[in-house]
Amino acid sequence: MVEILKTSSVGIVKPQAAKFEGPLNLECGFTLDSFELVYETYGRLNKNRSNAVLICHALSGNHHAAGFHNEDDKRAGWWDEYIGPGKPIDTEKFYVVSLNNLGGCHGSTGPISENPTTLKPWGNNFPSIRVKDWVETQARLADRLEIDSWAAVIGGSLGGMQVMQWAIDHPSRIRNAVVIASALKLSAQNIAFNEIARQAIRADPKFAGGNYLSMKSIPEEGLALARMIGHVTYLSDDAMALKFGRELRSGSFDSNFSDGIEFQVESYLKYQGKRFSGQFDANSYILMTRALDFFDLARNYNDNAVEAFSVAECKFLVVSFTTDWRFSPSRSQEIVEALIAAKKNVTYMEIKADEGHDAFLLPIPRYFQTISAYMKGIETN
Amino acid sequence: MVEILKTSSVGIVKPQAAKFEGPLNLECGFTLDSFELVYETYGRLNKNRSNAVLICHALSGNHHAAGFHNEDDKRAGWWDEYIGPGKPIDTEKFYVVSLNNLGGCHGSTGPISENPTTLKPWGNNFPSIRVKDWVETQARLADRLEIDSWAAVIGGSLGGMQVMQWAIDHPSRIRNAVVIASALKLSAQNIAFNEIARQAIRADPKFAGGNYLSMKSIPEEGLALARMIGHVTYLSDDAMALKFGRELRSGSFDSNFSDGIEFQVESYLKYQGKRFSGQFDANSYILMTRALDFFDLARNYNDNAVEAFSVAECKFLVVSFTTDWRFSPSRSQEIVEALIAAKKNVTYMEIKADEGHDAFLLPIPRYFQTISAYMKGIETN
Repeated sequence: MVEILKTSSVGIVKPQAAKFEGPLNLECGFTLDSFELVYETYGRLNKNRSNAVLICHALSGNHHAAGFHNEDDKRAGWWDEYIGPGKPIDTEKFYVVSLNNLGGCHGSTGPISENPTTLKPWGNNFPSIRVKDWVETQARLADRLEIDSWAAVIGGSLGGMQVMQWAIDHPSRIRNAVVIASALKLSAQNIAFNEIARQAIRADPKFAGGNYLSMKSIPEEGLALARMIGHVTYLSDDAMALKFGRELRSGSFDSNFSDGIEFQVESYLKYQGKRFSGQFDANSYILMTRALDFFDLARNYNDNAVEAFSVAECKFLVVSFTTDWRFSPSRSQEIVEALIAAKKNVTYMEIKADEGHDAFLLPIPRYFQTISAYMKGIETN
Repeated sequence: MVEILKTSSVGIVKPQAAKFEGPLNLECGFTLDSFELVYETYGRLNKNRSNAVLICHALSGNHHAAGFHNEDDKRAGWWDEYIGPGKPIDTEKFYVVSLNNLGGCHGSTGPISENPTTLKPWGNNFPSIRVKDWVETQARLADRLEIDSWAAVIGGSLGGMQVMQWAIDHPSRIRNAVVIASALKLSAQNIAFNEIARQAIRADPKFAGGNYLSMKSIPEEGLALARMIGHVTYLSDDAMALKFGRELRSGSFDSNFSDGIEFQVESYLKYQGKRFSGQFDANSYILMTRALDFFDLARNYNDNAVEAFSVAECKFLVVSFTTDWRFSPSRSQEIVEALIAAKKNVTYMEIKADEGHDAFLLPIPRYFQTISAYMKGIETN
């Protein structure tokens, strides 16, 4: 593992912004007259413009997938272990594009942006976004960068949904689809967890019906709760047991902390929740979980995933993790089964990992090697 | 199933109250000078006083386990399918005692009771309660009812923890221990879910730091959220899929409800949460989940469950359910392994059921038959 991490970094990167004028007709029926996307790129586009790779982020991700923003930056991008020179998504071979999705809160147009009609932040009036909308905006970004076809589109979880949507919406523009820890659609249980997270946000009086920005308040407690729910469900029972066991903050069963927090796991959750609530916009979080809930690849294809995939032209790599119970291996297997039935070229890898859904972000050797080997096999001439 | 449900009821039952004077030294170090327990009984105590069965309730349970409270009562007690004439816990054979635990909110002394010192409700000043305290108070109730030894002590989930504690705290007073969907102690994941539920309650401004009763407010939203978390995690993924799938309230993906609730499962959760928040006290809920978190049967026995069980004299029936992921079969198997190593008489049954943890409350045929057969084998002479 140490050896893996010793490989070098893309170094200091600078986010860029692309403004798109001209109407964007969203799935919900609303039309955005213009929008902006913030993105980063790593590596160099080759002469044939054929080595571009698109990274699609998940629920709480953003465009900063690799490298650092300045000399003092202690925290690398969220997928830095995977993107860089000599890494699985090798920036000496590929030109990697990573964007903040529309509706996000890290620079791309979203609920915290100014609504040009009201000259106030959109807030909860920002239109509802679907995965299909993201793919459409990503295609416009590809146009802007003059990328006709992606060597690969890669994403985990909600990111994997965007990858599948790419394969059927723009079959000629994607040569490899890497779908990690994802699903054709969410289960009722998964929707339920998302709804509880949204309720937690909405129940916070500082949410103010979504108008918190104009009230200069932030629903920190609600957002922290939402994050805690995500955190626990994205980890496996075993991972939590390994990490915390039943360790007490005090070491003793007899003390009572005034905040009522007595187990290490509680203290950790509260810390993580609080940290997140200072970094993420509540309306964005609701919007992103909604996009997750509503994703249903086969919906416009008679609820038949085989039919949905029939137009795809790319190769697929599907990856799942044994202890991931929110996007379990059986969900990935449904994708694989549909792809096989649709006579597509698909490789499937189920990775033994203790870390639950979070595994998709981590440098687990077998997973690391799988992505690495697959990416090495991609032609970029 | 219909045939099972056709068996008759214990009819109309009347809760009784028992007041206990004299100090109760709690595990947390606090001493209660007196307390009251509310309970119901079904069936008749035999001449030898040897046919008594104690029912221990779980997190949100109470003393009303069977029958009805009046002619118009449409809702039977929470375990009515299992308790009654001809039912698995046959009231023609057994004298069944079911109480509301100390710290509860259905009549027994708890956070909504008056603190004799302040003449105001205890609220969040009610002392912290452990499973061991419940067993002690239940033993005092047994003394009051002149029951030297229980033919059986039965409980699911948190109730099962009380049953195990009985077996080691009062080995001569319990002849059969029926431990259903329980564990020697909670996992970190389980503690984490409980903590999120507590945070949801505490984050509700109407909770007012636990002093809501004196402010004449009720933290309904927080309690509803806590219940939703419980509800989702006590059901299996499959059970939710069967019950709701991804059904939309509107039947259409295109509409937007003003409350943001678009899937049936969301609507159901919100309804259940709201209903619960009108029936349960928030401080009680926190107290009960705390008792769950802190339970650790082996803690006072060098963390060795075999040593803990060594003093037990009773027979054990341990039951688990295949899709229960909060108290999974492997947790029950740990109980069984420790009992075998301690050379105790134990029967184990893993029931195939789709309903997750909730299965322990339901009339699932194989489970129903297991309890029935086991109870038939108990001698009450």
